[in-house]
Amino acid sequence: MYVILMYDCGEKRVGKMLKLCRRYLHWIQNSVFEGEISEVGLKELCIEAKKIMNEKEDSLIIFKSRNEKWLDKEIIGLEKNSTDNFL
Amino acid sequence: MYVILMYDCGEKRVGKMLKLCRRYLHWIQNSVFEGEISEVGLKELCIEAKKIMNEKEDSLIIFKSRNEKWLDKEIIGLEKNSTDNFL
Repeated sequence: MYVILMYDCGEKRVGKMLKLCRRYLHWIQNSVFEGEISEVGLKELCIEAKKIMNEKEDSLIIFKSRNEKWLDKEIIGLEKNSTDNFL
Repeated sequence: MYVILMYDCGEKRVGKMLKLCRRYLHWIQNSVFEGEISEVGLKELCIEAKKIMNEKEDSLIIFKSRNEKWLDKEIIGLEKNSTDNFL
């Protein structure tokens, strides 16, 4: 399945979340990632994320689409990507 | 159509972008918005966004889905929403 994932974490946890998400998905902007992932992969990612997150302060939103074709992506301005030196 | 929109702007332009996006969509997290929007509404939003943005530095990503039903949303942790005092 294809997912768009975004997190909002306390500063201390951002680095760990970024590292975790990059293991499974492609970074596209700020704290937003996208990519093809299996059900199992997503479950793993969520379990690991919960270990990092403070669930009373942080939030993780995942949009899932069964098929990438159902989503059109449009980019205006600069296209950033995972080769950026983000963090 | 249903869209998920995210921007990454220079600090000086963030306030204007936030205000613009809120006119058309619902804020869900950091610089991420979602909502139902017409083709015309989205065109207007993009035109206005381009006036605010520095296209060499800033980026705006829009995921479009013809139908909201094709997207599942999962939230882990805190569910923030437009009633938050963000900015």
